[in-house]
Amino acid sequence: MKLRRSERMVVISNYLLNNPYQLISLNVFAEKYEAAKSSISEDVAIIKKAFNDGDIGCIETVTGANGGVVFTPAISTDEAREIAKELCQKLSENDRILPGGYIYLSDLLSTPAILKNVGRIIANAFKDKKIDAVMTVATKGVPLANAVANILNVPFVIVRRDLKITEGSTVSVNYASGSSDRIEKMFLSKRSLKPNSQVLIVDDFLKGGGTISGMISLLKEFDSKLVGVAVFADNIQERRHHLSYKSLLTVTNIDVRTNKIEVQLGNIFDS
Amino acid sequence: MKLRRSERMVVISNYLLNNPYQLISLNVFAEKYEAAKSSISEDVAIIKKAFNDGDIGCIETVTGANGGVVFTPAISTDEAREIAKELCQKLSENDRILPGGYIYLSDLLSTPAILKNVGRIIANAFKDKKIDAVMTVATKGVPLANAVANILNVPFVIVRRDLKITEGSTVSVNYASGSSDRIEKMFLSKRSLKPNSQVLIVDDFLKGGGTISGMISLLKEFDSKLVGVAVFADNIQERRHHLSYKSLLTVTNIDVRTNKIEVQLGNIFDS
Repeated sequence: MKLRRSERMVVISNYLLNNPYQLISLNVFAEKYEAAKSSISEDVAIIKKAFNDGDIGCIETVTGANGGVVFTPAISTDEAREIAKELCQKLSENDRILPGGYIYLSDLLSTPAILKNVGRIIANAFKDKKIDAVMTVATKGVPLANAVANILNVPFVIVRRDLKITEGSTVSVNYASGSSDRIEKMFLSKRSLKPNSQVLIVDDFLKGGGTISGMISLLKEFDSKLVGVAVFADNIQERRHHLSYKSLLTVTNIDVRTNKIEVQLGNIFDS
Repeated sequence: MKLRRSERMVVISNYLLNNPYQLISLNVFAEKYEAAKSSISEDVAIIKKAFNDGDIGCIETVTGANGGVVFTPAISTDEAREIAKELCQKLSENDRILPGGYIYLSDLLSTPAILKNVGRIIANAFKDKKIDAVMTVATKGVPLANAVANILNVPFVIVRRDLKITEGSTVSVNYASGSSDRIEKMFLSKRSLKPNSQVLIVDDFLKGGGTISGMISLLKEFDSKLVGVAVFADNIQERRHHLSYKSLLTVTNIDVRTNKIEVQLGNIFDS
C-alpha cells in the first residue's frame, strides 16, 4: 500500500501507539508502505518530535542490524496532576460513602477514559524499571491492572480469593484480611506467572495492607521479584503497614457522621 | 503550542484514537495548536484518508454550530480473520485441557495485545448499534468487557457471583449454573447501571448459557435493553440454549482422552 508522507505518518504513529515498549524494525514500515527506509526514518523523526512536544511519549532509536525504534508512553506532570485533581473531586462526592465507612469506587474504575489516564500515570511512575507482569487481586483490581499493563505492554496476572476449576493447578498463601483481621487464603494459577518475573503489584484501594502483603508472599512462591506497588487510592487513617507504595489519591478522612470524604493527591506526585 | 502541520497531524490523530465515539469540535485543536480552523479541517481530511486506507477507522464530520468530528474505530475483515486464526491455533494447544474438560484461557485474556485486538473485533461487529454500557460477569469476563468498552468508549458493569460490601445496594437474580445445573445467585450494584441503558453483554466462554441468561434477566430488573451478546469462544458440543450471540472462536470438540481441542472461527465471521 503506497501512501503519501502525511498519511504514512498517521498510520505509523498509530502503530507505535498500539505497540509500546516493543522494538519495531523500520523495515516493516518500509515494506508495508513501499517507501525507502530513509523516508521512513524521516517520518519517525517528525513523529518523535510530535510525541515529545505533545507529551505523548518518547521514541528511542536502537541502531544495528536488529535495530529499530521503541515507543515509551509518557504523561506530563501537569496533565497527570490535572487528571488526579479531577479524580480527587469525584472521589470526595459525599454519596460515595457506604455503610461501614467504605467508599464506592466501581464507577470510576469501570470508565475507560478514566482507566486509561490512571494507567498512564501509574505506568509512567515505573517506566524506567524492567517489568514483566502486573499483578492484582480479583475483582476490583482487574481493570486497573489491565490499564497499567496496556501501557507497559506486558501481561497481567489475577490473584483470586476463591478456587476456580478453570484456573488449573494453583499456589495458595495465607494473608491477614485487613478489614477483618481474619486469616484468609489467596490463590494464583501456577501457569499464570513465569519464575524470575519482575512484577508490579496494582490494586484499587490500600487500607490495612494485608492483601498486598499476601501478593508479595505469593511472588516469593513464584521465585519472582517485586518491582513496586501502586494503588488508585490509599487511606492514611487506617494505615497499619510499612509497605512502600505509590498512590494516585490519598483519602485523609472519612467522616460517616457528616458524610464527608477528604481526598488529596497521592504520594505518586511527591518529589 | 504552535506545531508544524506534520506534527499537528500526529498529535490530532493521537487524540482521536484515544477518544473514539466522541464528538470533538475542531476549535479545540485550532486553539490548542494556534492554527486556523481551515488548516485543522485540512489536517483532519488527511487523517481521515489515512485512517481509511490503513483500516484504522472512520472519521465522520458533523456540521453546524455544535459540530465537529467523530472517530469510529474499525478493523478490516482480513485483519480480523488473521487475528482470529492465530487465536484458533493458540486455543487448540493441547496443554490447555484441564481436568474435567475445561480449557485454560487466562493467559490469552490477560495479554494486552490480544485483548486489544479481540476488543476491536467485537466492537466492530456492533459499531452501528447504540450502546451505553458493556456488561460482564466477574472475574474472567472483566478484561474482555474492558477491552470492548475501551473501543466503544462506554463504561462497563461487572455482575458478581458473591456479595461485596464495597458495592453498596445490589439487585440479585437467580440463574442456572450451566456447568452444574444448580441454581445460583448473581448480583449487580444498584448504582452501576442507569435505567433505560442499551447494553452489550460480553463473556469469555459460552457453554450452557446459564450465566448469560442470568445477565439478561438482570437487564430487565434495571429496565435496560439487550443490544447483543458477544463471547470470546463458545462450545457447540455443550450448546443447550437458544441464545442469539456472536463468537470469535468456536470449540467444536474437546477430547480429554487424546488431549485434543478443535477450534474454528466463530460465527462473528459469518456472512
